[in-house]
Amino acid sequence: MSENRIYLDNAATTPIHPEVVEAMIPIMKENYGNPSSTHAHGRKAKGIIEESRSKIAKLLNCAPAEITFTSGGTEADNLALRGSITKLGIQRIITSPIEHHAVIHTAEDIAHHQNIELNLLSVDSDGRVNIQELAELLAKDSKPTLVSLMHANNELGNMIDIEAVGNLCHQHNALFHCDTVQTMGHFTFDLSKGYVDFITGAAHKFNGPKGVGFLYINKKNKLQPEITGGSQEREMRGGTENVYGIVGLSTALEISYRDLEAKRSHIQAIKTHMINKLREVIPGVEFNGHPEENSLYTVLSVSLPPNDMGSMLLFNLDLAGISASGGSACSSGATGGSHVINACKPGSNRTTVRFSFGKQNTIEEINYTIENLAKWYAAQPA
Amino acid sequence: MSENRIYLDNAATTPIHPEVVEAMIPIMKENYGNPSSTHAHGRKAKGIIEESRSKIAKLLNCAPAEITFTSGGTEADNLALRGSITKLGIQRIITSPIEHHAVIHTAEDIAHHQNIELNLLSVDSDGRVNIQELAELLAKDSKPTLVSLMHANNELGNMIDIEAVGNLCHQHNALFHCDTVQTMGHFTFDLSKGYVDFITGAAHKFNGPKGVGFLYINKKNKLQPEITGGSQEREMRGGTENVYGIVGLSTALEISYRDLEAKRSHIQAIKTHMINKLREVIPGVEFNGHPEENSLYTVLSVSLPPNDMGSMLLFNLDLAGISASGGSACSSGATGGSHVINACKPGSNRTTVRFSFGKQNTIEEINYTIENLAKWYAAQPA
Repeated sequence: MSENRIYLDNAATTPIHPEVVEAMIPIMKENYGNPSSTHAHGRKAKGIIEESRSKIAKLLNCAPAEITFTSGGTEADNLALRGSITKLGIQRIITSPIEHHAVIHTAEDIAHHQNIELNLLSVDSDGRVNIQELAELLAKDSKPTLVSLMHANNELGNMIDIEAVGNLCHQHNALFHCDTVQTMGHFTFDLSKGYVDFITGAAHKFNGPKGVGFLYINKKNKLQPEITGGSQEREMRGGTENVYGIVGLSTALEISYRDLEAKRSHIQAIKTHMINKLREVIPGVEFNGHPEENSLYTVLSVSLPPNDMGSMLLFNLDLAGISASGGSACSSGATGGSHVINACKPGSNRTTVRFSFGKQNTIEEINYTIENLAKWYAAQPA
Repeated sequence: MSENRIYLDNAATTPIHPEVVEAMIPIMKENYGNPSSTHAHGRKAKGIIEESRSKIAKLLNCAPAEITFTSGGTEADNLALRGSITKLGIQRIITSPIEHHAVIHTAEDIAHHQNIELNLLSVDSDGRVNIQELAELLAKDSKPTLVSLMHANNELGNMIDIEAVGNLCHQHNALFHCDTVQTMGHFTFDLSKGYVDFITGAAHKFNGPKGVGFLYINKKNKLQPEITGGSQEREMRGGTENVYGIVGLSTALEISYRDLEAKRSHIQAIKTHMINKLREVIPGVEFNGHPEENSLYTVLSVSLPPNDMGSMLLFNLDLAGISASGGSACSSGATGGSHVINACKPGSNRTTVRFSFGKQNTIEEINYTIENLAKWYAAQPA
């Protein structure tokens, strides 16, 4: 893409870090063995993926055997949900209406086809999931349950207290899957504490390549594979491993944690600046979620006052060279607007723009974006 | 890997063609948009994958909408089998005991969990699948049926007459899935003839990248997605697309068909040479399958006379710098030897080595390999 464009859609995907590309290229050029082959070419490839697995495990403080590579976050979420049903005898899934489609559509599909009870927790107008309700549901009925709640909402930025929710689930013997696709690489995890059973990662959300991700599966649990075939990934996922993708994933995660504090303070400053500046220049601006309280520093969901031309806003930003989004990229093919905003603020006629930030963004880019937003907004009939 | 090693395991995986790497690198470096995003970054990425889809469709003479990208051949096989059960009301799967594990394990898993009838066709000692039996099964019972038979067996090289089998299935209103993972890029297809409902491809089998493949789904059929989430791939497969992998896949397929005749005659000469030379130098050598009659030119399964040290043969070849295999790489974690050889020649005490060839192999490499094989064999006690 032209270097003059401003990319503020980092929750949809991120540019690959140049060091990640450099780590992948030699593997693509030279190490073409199949990790399942027992000869030297195969052993070399096997060594490469096991080294990547160990790196990831070390960063997350878990065992390498607890990391299963997948084709991305969506497949990892599917594996956690679908794989636990028969294997672990799950009879009920508790989740929320503001999960990513990878979770909510999968939970609905399982409930529909496999006769599993599905409970959706309520959310308030700021997108807070009702954890008291979760406690009550778990206390009321002890049937084998999988709870799936995302660590940070991809449209709002709202975060849950992952440790507290995990411990609550475990008090009631429920399994806890946490979709950490938006927080992986942006927050640290100490999985040795045991508060989660399954978490997910997608490399392209933290400056790694597309087409590769992973599922952490706590060693206490064994899942039914979703993709059956060969005995790869300890019989958890058939198919020849994406060796260069896996190297890209582990390299990107290492870089993310190496640079975490600098990245976090840089991006948090951008987000805070954007909140303050928007309040100054656009009367009536609001924010979806609770961006100033336990919120993902990379995401800001802006809610603009009702306006007849609201549906043209993203188009106008795009023309001005700014890439932002209305919500999840994965939902952009769907009609009826964002299911997340609809769940929090049903019937709202305000216009939502999600800005999501990466380490490459600058205050100047934010100022230019706000200028455009304000100009466009001022030009619209009241 | 060291350039001095000889790689004769091209049915397990192939080196990426340098032109493929060159096509992927700029996409990795510059085109990082999410194809589902509606802004310029996203549209650019979307354009790239749709261009790849069109290229593949043109090569196979089908419509672009009939190509669904997956993470590889195993996922594509799973999607065809699992996706047709509920959506198309399949009540019976007919397959063979010598299919790749991606098909046979998936069919068994479906039969076990979803109460679907599973019929396995018999095979003779040369690995010929009994097509007469297929005709009888289809004629005897008209329940909705999916037939899954591979185009070329990955261990034996045996090929079926894909058009004749497909037409037989369609005469009886059965759906026909053909695992073409070993023939894609090595043989041409004219899918406009309509003889198959589903075929599969894995880029890394034809000098493309690992972690990407596709399923052709005839437009008459609609499948249930296996990986649910966003509405990517016309709602057939959730998850952000592996953009660079898809570019690698389409580039590799273009190169394969561009260079097909030269590649085929080069590799066929290598295979014929190896057959003739082995017959000369190793008394009692046989070949599994029917390598000189309707056979994949890239695969040769050598059967050596019984020998106490047979289990050490691959190890010795490896020490001599030759990468070959006992069977499918995807089965190497399994115990009990090759399920394919066991199905054809139950109880055989002969030693099998599969040599599989690529365009980079030379007659000199084959001569060196045969020399080693003969030397090793001569040194063993009778």
